[in-house]
Amino acid sequence: MLAHRLIERKRDGARIEPGEWRALALAYAKGHVPDYQMAALLMACFLRGLDRGETAALTEAMLLSGDRLERSEHGRPRVDKHSTGGVGDKVSLVLAPLIASIGVDVPMMSGRSLGHTGGTLDKLESIPGFRTDLTLAEARAQIDLIGCALIGQSPEIAPADKKMYALRDATATVESIPLIASSIMSKKLAEGLTGLVLDMKRGSGALLPDLERVLELADVMITLGADHGCPCVALVTAMDRPLGRACGNALEVEEAILALRGEGPPDLMEVTYALGAEMLVLSGVSEDLESARLEMASAIASGKAAERFQRIIEAQGGNPSVVDDPAILPQANECELFGAPRRGFVARIEPRAIGRGIIEMGGGRTRVEDTADPTVGFVITARPGDWVEAGEPMATIFARDRSGISSGRHALRTALLIADEAEPPLPLISHRVTSAGHEVYRTD
Amino acid sequence: MLAHRLIERKRDGARIEPGEWRALALAYAKGHVPDYQMAALLMACFLRGLDRGETAALTEAMLLSGDRLERSEHGRPRVDKHSTGGVGDKVSLVLAPLIASIGVDVPMMSGRSLGHTGGTLDKLESIPGFRTDLTLAEARAQIDLIGCALIGQSPEIAPADKKMYALRDATATVESIPLIASSIMSKKLAEGLTGLVLDMKRGSGALLPDLERVLELADVMITLGADHGCPCVALVTAMDRPLGRACGNALEVEEAILALRGEGPPDLMEVTYALGAEMLVLSGVSEDLESARLEMASAIASGKAAERFQRIIEAQGGNPSVVDDPAILPQANECELFGAPRRGFVARIEPRAIGRGIIEMGGGRTRVEDTADPTVGFVITARPGDWVEAGEPMATIFARDRSGISSGRHALRTALLIADEAEPPLPLISHRVTSAGHEVYRTD
Repeated sequence: MLAHRLIERKRDGARIEPGEWRALALAYAKGHVPDYQMAALLMACFLRGLDRGETAALTEAMLLSGDRLERSEHGRPRVDKHSTGGVGDKVSLVLAPLIASIGVDVPMMSGRSLGHTGGTLDKLESIPGFRTDLTLAEARAQIDLIGCALIGQSPEIAPADKKMYALRDATATVESIPLIASSIMSKKLAEGLTGLVLDMKRGSGALLPDLERVLELADVMITLGADHGCPCVALVTAMDRPLGRACGNALEVEEAILALRGEGPPDLMEVTYALGAEMLVLSGVSEDLESARLEMASAIASGKAAERFQRIIEAQGGNPSVVDDPAILPQANECELFGAPRRGFVARIEPRAIGRGIIEMGGGRTRVEDTADPTVGFVITARPGDWVEAGEPMATIFARDRSGISSGRHALRTALLIADEAEPPLPLISHRVTSAGHEVYRTD
Repeated sequence: MLAHRLIERKRDGARIEPGEWRALALAYAKGHVPDYQMAALLMACFLRGLDRGETAALTEAMLLSGDRLERSEHGRPRVDKHSTGGVGDKVSLVLAPLIASIGVDVPMMSGRSLGHTGGTLDKLESIPGFRTDLTLAEARAQIDLIGCALIGQSPEIAPADKKMYALRDATATVESIPLIASSIMSKKLAEGLTGLVLDMKRGSGALLPDLERVLELADVMITLGADHGCPCVALVTAMDRPLGRACGNALEVEEAILALRGEGPPDLMEVTYALGAEMLVLSGVSEDLESARLEMASAIASGKAAERFQRIIEAQGGNPSVVDDPAILPQANECELFGAPRRGFVARIEPRAIGRGIIEMGGGRTRVEDTADPTVGFVITARPGDWVEAGEPMATIFARDRSGISSGRHALRTALLIADEAEPPLPLISHRVTSAGHEVYRTD
């Protein structure tokens, strides 16, 4: 009867009270509220909205439906980074070992790929032997020891959110700011963080393409963090093209390893440094963003960051030699260069078309139960604004077989638009949002 | 994928095309679309609405998800009556045998009680032995033979609607005009009717209390009927108080039998005659409403109508002697008079409070799987506008035991409001709606 009354209330545009959200989340996590009632409520929430108080109450309710990752006793700060997701976004793989190597704990809990966007867990699992299914106790012990664990959403963390997230995906109720914010923050607040940095993607390949809505989402999440004693900073970054060159699970791990050695592509390095600097300042380890950048550059130059990644891989059952020899990663059977179909400017590199191409080639999932082939994908060397001659190589396609190559070629023909005039891409990092408001991002 | 796309479309306020509604209804009836997706779609339909074309397409889609009751070869007209439901509404029990006895087939397919409103099936099943679960073939054979069958919604009729109706009840998506209209009309159009009369309840005890919305619903249903070659007429009748005196399953059967003998309470007789006259004119058996009323009065006076009820009861396995001796009906263990708590005018007899009282006493259901005690209920002799002295009998309570009597007393104290001034009740029949529009109802 509770669920029915709350659906009715939200349907008519009224508020649901904190105690009611709590009772509902608990009952839903325990299976006492059926999915069909929750689906009707989610659609009512999508269309009627939740005010700030309700969003906070729902976040709190989902957080309380499960366990938390307790703070360690050693007293190191603990920060994390969350990205709203995109194509080619392997920043977590670089950032987690890099920041941990500087003395800040990073309990990075990530998701799987779904739809056109990639997932950190799938990328990590392309490393032979790597396990992401640590228990909370295992994760905590590993963080105490080496400052970082790279794990999936444990069933103990925010189980109500876990069920609700899967349901939203099936019922077209994903793109709602209060539902996105409460889902992300209920998980992140369970990590016992002292600070959180948000990578808010904007542009055609982002969950919310529109800047206004991205800023609103950032604002809601930052408020939720502040209310729970977890200061947050958000950077708005471009997802009108893939980040870096590699798109595809094993290919992205390889690029992340190059980045940890200081050989990553410039856009990936810039986003990594920008987010990492915020993490180091939030954690109190660096005085300002400038000195944080120097700290990171030195951890990479000294090999400390790459070495930390080796220790994490080893601790989670993977083969650590992959850091020295990325050829250990599973390799695609077929590869082929893709040449420019005509001369002109590279006007667009459409992330959704790239992501859908990877799914088409067997490297992603359309349903949670699908398994993804880690080897397939693209390395796209062309950048928006580049001038290309007809036939000039723009990308390499990696596939399981010839039919995969042909799918890949088809995807690139859709994704890579060549035009007579250059279209200016979005600035790589456009805004910085804190609890004080948002400002245009400045690179010095 | 179909369901997800359609949810998204309706969520954003766009149209769903006829072919898509058909594919969806079939897939849902077969269990290929899960309840949670349908629940999200229903909420999106509730909040975004369906236009006339979509309502027609959904009706058609649900109709086509199942079988139909084929027309007979003997060529008698076939009409039915549908009521949007209320408390004390036993009109179907009187009307079906009455109209059948005049030579018009009445394939009356009814529902069970749910919430505060009663259900014709539950009432009929209080007659010892009476079966309502005829197959379509059995129902058709019985209609051929005696002109009437009183049955439930067969699983063969509009199965998509059957599932969707149960889901709407659980997800607070009942009170939507397009969803109500398509649900009712998909079932009624499957009966192969030559005409349909709608009893549209208004007032505090009705599904849609507000007159504007009742007229809109009538209009949508009449258009749906016309599009399918089934002319419809609707009368708007009062449900700000119970209809007749008896409320409760066996008590209402008894009152219906009295009505078939010409001894029913005036309001019940008036609504029955008004609806019946429309049925007879629609079927072409009567030239006008006036001669139709005379026809009905004569069928009652001659005993033809009561005798037809006996034949129906016998054909469906019940004890036909009940028509001569209603004491054969199950009787409550306890009964008690309820006296006016003070002197004054009877200002209100609140149907919802009466309906809820019957549930409280074990005579209704809050969930579909509940069983209802047929004996409990009320006979309310006071009418709105009456003057009563303190202690003067207003009603009789029928219950299983003393605690039931006390629940009944409590319900009547809430339902029967006595005031110093008389409040005028709604006119018993206020509007007549046809495809030409609506007009104020006139009694000559």
